[in-house]
Amino acid sequence: MAAIKVHGSPLSTAVQRVVACLYEKGVDFQFVPVNMAAGEHKSDNFLALNPFGQVPAFEDGDLKLFESRAITHYVAHEYADKGTQLLIPGSNKDAAVLQLWTEVEAHQFNSPASVLAWELFYKPIFGKVTDAAAVEENEGKLGKVLDVYESRLSKSKYLAADYFTLADLYHLPNLQCLLGTSAKTVVESRPHVSAWVKEITARPAWSKVLAMQKQ
Amino acid sequence: MAAIKVHGSPLSTAVQRVVACLYEKGVDFQFVPVNMAAGEHKSDNFLALNPFGQVPAFEDGDLKLFESRAITHYVAHEYADKGTQLLIPGSNKDAAVLQLWTEVEAHQFNSPASVLAWELFYKPIFGKVTDAAAVEENEGKLGKVLDVYESRLSKSKYLAADYFTLADLYHLPNLQCLLGTSAKTVVESRPHVSAWVKEITARPAWSKVLAMQKQ
Repeated sequence: MAAIKVHGSPLSTAVQRVVACLYEKGVDFQFVPVNMAAGEHKSDNFLALNPFGQVPAFEDGDLKLFESRAITHYVAHEYADKGTQLLIPGSNKDAAVLQLWTEVEAHQFNSPASVLAWELFYKPIFGKVTDAAAVEENEGKLGKVLDVYESRLSKSKYLAADYFTLADLYHLPNLQCLLGTSAKTVVESRPHVSAWVKEITARPAWSKVLAMQKQ
Repeated sequence: MAAIKVHGSPLSTAVQRVVACLYEKGVDFQFVPVNMAAGEHKSDNFLALNPFGQVPAFEDGDLKLFESRAITHYVAHEYADKGTQLLIPGSNKDAAVLQLWTEVEAHQFNSPASVLAWELFYKPIFGKVTDAAAVEENEGKLGKVLDVYESRLSKSKYLAADYFTLADLYHLPNLQCLLGTSAKTVVESRPHVSAWVKEITARPAWSKVLAMQKQ
């Protein structure tokens, strides 16, 4: 049995972030489905793994973690010698550039992208009504963020380095949702951003995540 | 002249986060005031330092950074042998616990706390009208997050370890704002959270940040 367990639903963007990282690293893991429709993520058993009652929860032997970016950060460091190099090894100054672009994802990109994913991708699945004003506001915000990305990606093939790192990986789940909605124009109207999105969503590890969703 | 420059306004919570870290580490720096009322943070000169047009921007010799948590992460690693130990040195599993609680700050605490700081602390300063519905909604969200903190802090003196780390430091600016508003009851009604807040806001490095604000 694999030492690593990921508890969650393949529909969750946060779970997808973790699973994409494990596939990139080629690290074996056991996926433990959590029936969120039945409220399993609010059960005492699950709250012992993640007190916020959110997926994913993660175990590697005795270590229990939650928060998708903390999990992927751990996996990238603990399994540094396996699979894709997702870090920028070297000096603290080199590592700082990776940290910078992961913080940009967290504090600039994530909020408008998550709102758009919710409004345009998930709400129709759950039979809820999309809030057009929220869509307009967040398409504007996302556009401003992607203007900065467009400039960055005209000078650097990926966000933090000339190779794929955690900073790029963190964007995959929300970007994939947006590509299936009208908000894809915000991405596709910017040529360097569009090329980057095509490149990172075509990665074999990401294809495995998409295949897992379809199961 | 100090090699490190912090560009910003002492009123900004993100700037306070960086300055608190530098004071904790005892690292010399030059503070370069940015006149945000005059729109200096949207000038070409400033955008070359931070393309998002937000404070702070940071320089350490040739290295240019933005995003307050990326800057503090770099400072804590680059100046690891100076001042307060803000990291959890040791195995990847030890470091993962710090990463977990910094991610909790970013993805659970920061959003409701920032909204409350804006609505209750900053809006009155700028002569704007507080949105009572936003306050109520975010006091509810913050309360749920602090319920998890209350449980955690009943078992651990600080969030990530039995000593003060970056995970605690990241909370200081927003917590300090809340203490000056009606939202302080959300903090003070939880005994372990309240004791933790008293402890971390009483740190000498944080007092220096508050003194800088008053200048």
